[in-house]
Amino acid sequence: MKCTTEQELVKLVKRSKPFTKDGKVADYIPALEKADPDKLAIAVYSKEDGCLSAGDVGETFTLQSISKILTLALAIMDAGEDHVFSRVGKEPTGDPFNSIAKLESQVPSKPLNPMINAGALVVTDLIHGETSDEKVGRILQLIHDMTNNSSIGINYEVADSEFESAHLNRALCYFMKQHGLIDNDVEMLLEAYTKQCSVEVNCKDLARIGMVLANEGRDPETERKIIPRYIARIVKTFMVTCGMYNASGEFAINVAIPAKSGVSGGILSLVPNQMGIGVYSPPLDPKGNSIAGIKLLENFSSQYELSIF
Amino acid sequence: MKCTTEQELVKLVKRSKPFTKDGKVADYIPALEKADPDKLAIAVYSKEDGCLSAGDVGETFTLQSISKILTLALAIMDAGEDHVFSRVGKEPTGDPFNSIAKLESQVPSKPLNPMINAGALVVTDLIHGETSDEKVGRILQLIHDMTNNSSIGINYEVADSEFESAHLNRALCYFMKQHGLIDNDVEMLLEAYTKQCSVEVNCKDLARIGMVLANEGRDPETERKIIPRYIARIVKTFMVTCGMYNASGEFAINVAIPAKSGVSGGILSLVPNQMGIGVYSPPLDPKGNSIAGIKLLENFSSQYELSIF
Amino acid sequence: MKCTTEQELVKLVKRSKPFTKDGKVADYIPALEKADPDKLAIAVYSKEDGCLSAGDVGETFTLQSISKILTLALAIMDAGEDHVFSRVGKEPTGDPFNSIAKLESQVPSKPLNPMINAGALVVTDLIHGETSDEKVGRILQLIHDMTNNSSIGINYEVADSEFESAHLNRALCYFMKQHGLIDNDVEMLLEAYTKQCSVEVNCKDLARIGMVLANEGRDPETERKIIPRYIARIVKTFMVTCGMYNASGEFAINVAIPAKSGVSGGILSLVPNQMGIGVYSPPLDPKGNSIAGIKLLENFSSQYELSIF
Amino acid sequence: MKCTTEQELVKLVKRSKPFTKDGKVADYIPALEKADPDKLAIAVYSKEDGCLSAGDVGETFTLQSISKILTLALAIMDAGEDHVFSRVGKEPTGDPFNSIAKLESQVPSKPLNPMINAGALVVTDLIHGETSDEKVGRILQLIHDMTNNSSIGINYEVADSEFESAHLNRALCYFMKQHGLIDNDVEMLLEAYTKQCSVEVNCKDLARIGMVLANEGRDPETERKIIPRYIARIVKTFMVTCGMYNASGEFAINVAIPAKSGVSGGILSLVPNQMGIGVYSPPLDPKGNSIAGIKLLENFSSQYELSIF
Repeated sequence: MKCTTEQELVKLVKRSKPFTKDGKVADYIPALEKADPDKLAIAVYSKEDGCLSAGDVGETFTLQSISKILTLALAIMDAGEDHVFSRVGKEPTGDPFNSIAKLESQVPSKPLNPMINAGALVVTDLIHGETSDEKVGRILQLIHDMTNNSSIGINYEVADSEFESAHLNRALCYFMKQHGLIDNDVEMLLEAYTKQCSVEVNCKDLARIGMVLANEGRDPETERKIIPRYIARIVKTFMVTCGMYNASGEFAINVAIPAKSGVSGGILSLVPNQMGIGVYSPPLDPKGNSIAGIKLLENFSSQYELSIF
Repeated sequence: MKCTTEQELVKLVKRSKPFTKDGKVADYIPALEKADPDKLAIAVYSKEDGCLSAGDVGETFTLQSISKILTLALAIMDAGEDHVFSRVGKEPTGDPFNSIAKLESQVPSKPLNPMINAGALVVTDLIHGETSDEKVGRILQLIHDMTNNSSIGINYEVADSEFESAHLNRALCYFMKQHGLIDNDVEMLLEAYTKQCSVEVNCKDLARIGMVLANEGRDPETERKIIPRYIARIVKTFMVTCGMYNASGEFAINVAIPAKSGVSGGILSLVPNQMGIGVYSPPLDPKGNSIAGIKLLENFSSQYELSIF
Repeated sequence: MKCTTEQELVKLVKRSKPFTKDGKVADYIPALEKADPDKLAIAVYSKEDGCLSAGDVGETFTLQSISKILTLALAIMDAGEDHVFSRVGKEPTGDPFNSIAKLESQVPSKPLNPMINAGALVVTDLIHGETSDEKVGRILQLIHDMTNNSSIGINYEVADSEFESAHLNRALCYFMKQHGLIDNDVEMLLEAYTKQCSVEVNCKDLARIGMVLANEGRDPETERKIIPRYIARIVKTFMVTCGMYNASGEFAINVAIPAKSGVSGGILSLVPNQMGIGVYSPPLDPKGNSIAGIKLLENFSSQYELSIF
Repeated sequence: MKCTTEQELVKLVKRSKPFTKDGKVADYIPALEKADPDKLAIAVYSKEDGCLSAGDVGETFTLQSISKILTLALAIMDAGEDHVFSRVGKEPTGDPFNSIAKLESQVPSKPLNPMINAGALVVTDLIHGETSDEKVGRILQLIHDMTNNSSIGINYEVADSEFESAHLNRALCYFMKQHGLIDNDVEMLLEAYTKQCSVEVNCKDLARIGMVLANEGRDPETERKIIPRYIARIVKTFMVTCGMYNASGEFAINVAIPAKSGVSGGILSLVPNQMGIGVYSPPLDPKGNSIAGIKLLENFSSQYELSIF
């Protein structure tokens, strides 16, 4: 059973649309708050059918936490698996994504995984680049390669707004600086980090990134290797164990495919060896995941029996 | 590429054997301490080839934490998915399996998942049965059905020894009793729990249980439904997100198949729709997982490309 | 400036009476719930004036946590200062009195002080006695000596009620048993502990106990030594640093004299070398201290300039 | 019994000197590391005898955490008791002075008391002044008034060194900035804070500050009011409940007088209505208190029966 027409996606979007009413658009950054709470879109990319989509696929949004899986891949390519995981763990955590307490109670101090903010900051610190622009340039290059869309850039309004209000991330950085987990200047790192979060994409872009990961790191059209296979697998594993904040366990049960969400309302998902999926809908549930987006993925996964388990 | 001869397993056992030297047999229960640290065994069950095995497959050992996935399946069958997950969460945790701190800091109090001790105790509490014998009888029946081996029983020496030294689990129970998470008498529950941990099996039994789960809950020979498919999936998901204590994330990256370990040195693993796997080797790593067992599974998964990601 | 007539106390009681409306009688034990929320009483014992009192001084109530300072004195007499403080710390804590989390995070596990439940349980465990009755007998003997009132006994209705609902204290005990902090059988210890909490006294009894402590451990009439001076000082120090649950710091600022409260609404206070004070009023503030009782003590301390600082 | 000659102090210094060998000079700031570990000094100020001293009283050192009690007094004078304590609590804590975990677990976020770093930073934030120089100028003025020594100034080498390595305090500040507990620019605040820690004094200065507090805020020579009496009392209370980091409870038992220590090895102590005491010896115990300094105070308090309990 396979989704082969956009009609099927249209039906799924319609069925999940009412759930947008149950969520709340992120309001901690003014630029995010402006998102239209009625939007819902899905794009599915497979080798056989290319990209199918439905809903408000023209909408663009910022990557936010979705960027964490891309920077993780890049940091492993840049600094090596061993070095990266000497500074950040591999274990899921029941704590919120922005928590600092475990950094203090763990001896030696080490973020539990690269999907929580502390871990993602350590990861971006390890990406090559003397300046934030160099780091961000390399991140954008990877995104251009994965999406085959070189027009993707940064939403500077969002980036500036996040940089100003990034006090919690600043606290995490200085705490980790004290513990030798951060090499670069903290303000430079935060600039790079807020920019990576502010890369602006649409659902089709997410679907194609998902397809590259599903295709074990190779471009689905040219089969050119963009990310080494073992790194693509590491990334997909983190998507399953901790991609949906501290609702990852529930998502793994209900939807059962790798996924990574962002507070902008985007979700990047995929089915190994089959397809990449991009979903977008701004209203969030209390844990920070797109509420209609999850519902849409759940219905999609269930209808086409996509569970990896 | 598929493992079809025992010779291949013999080679894998030989290759992983040296790692037994790096671990330490569990010593907190006298009966566990007596295990022979040199033992290493694997059994692989598939529909096509039946059960292949290598190493010390005659060795028996107690289920310990492996029992948690079986009682979870049974509790959901008995009390319903909603009721079970009203008392225990679905999220992985970075805390040790016997930790009590999160029970206090979470409001309302609720164990994070059914693979940590607190969660497993709640689960056993929900299995039907007025007495510990009734509960344990039902657990044994399920195990007999899954293994097709009705000779499996309880090692009472281990059970008694664990019951006497179960002060930490007692503390967890009384804490949860206070918070309304435990219905039964605590001592009765602990008796049932220590008995479920003391069910004695061998690697072939584990492999066949794994095969039932891999076969979506159906007997691999008769295709009779033993566990509903959605429950088998829930179980497999927990095996991936939190089956290997707080090394689950690392295992998911390195081995990339569902697995559940016990401090006796056993590991029950599987590949969805393909095979069940049982591994045994008593020496443990610092996180409580069989050190050579993990190595064996890692080599096996890598050699036959079993990753689900 | 000194309080020498009961008229002055009557005025103070009248002034503090309205605050009884702002609190809530403890309801977690049925026997406590029955207390009359309108009651307010104070008794002041000094060598010169004997015992002055005002308000509902005929009311009796159970010691509850006030017993912790008496068992601490007794345990040091029985087991020695060094042994007692090898099992319980001397430091105040910002955590609630019944918290278990710090027992887990402290390495080695050790209750922070003898005024939180965990610490008080360790202390009672160290009091001589093979049975709970022997332990409680020795506690009662000390209370008889300090109050010069041999009619004081246990309210068994309260004791039984507390024993049944003591799941949190049971959890603390079993956790500490696991860590070698408790020698005796846990149920025996809990029986002794709930009985010590259920010793029934009135305000005059509290005032005389306070006077013995203020008099450095000697009987105010006969000057017979009941408690060694250094132990009386230790007790008074804990009253200042952690006698009022996690409102001890605020009380030290506002009232500035040693005090220990119980959830029955009693407060035992004193001014070193001058007087003992007993206060009673059942309605509690959110931290578990008698709300009008604290107000009464604050006014009393302020009017007669009793601050030790 | 009263200390009236310097000979008595000389003997006490001699007796406590050997304990300097058991401690370790603070090494986290280069400038502190240079302190001579053999130094030990005491100064005692009373109205009757003026200032008696013994040992290395010519040695100067920086206030470090001792400054926290002075800024607390100033902040209450500047912003009012209610406003100050709306942002910082009054309760002692068992956590280390630089801990951040409780800021996260407390809802709403609020440092437990003004003697831990988080609380002290909030306090300095509330001192009047648009710039760090204005804040520090006001702090110095208070110190000049209390010591009657207008030559006291800042050790800029220490201040600069601390500012550079203040990542943990930076983390605390940004965390609290996020929670609305800090009004000023964080870097400005840190500049003021590191300067207040770097005010350079000697033991006689500490003794006279202690005398002002012991004299309820009035100059011991002119009886001019420097600090309101109720504020002097608040300060003395915090010295008892949390003046010696998380060894405050033990110090209250063993020494039993108000005291505040700093990692430079200084301790400011006092006996209410009687005397101020300054002690200095750089080697610290594991909790950050001057090891020989505590011993000296313990012997002094015991010999002259100074206990306030």
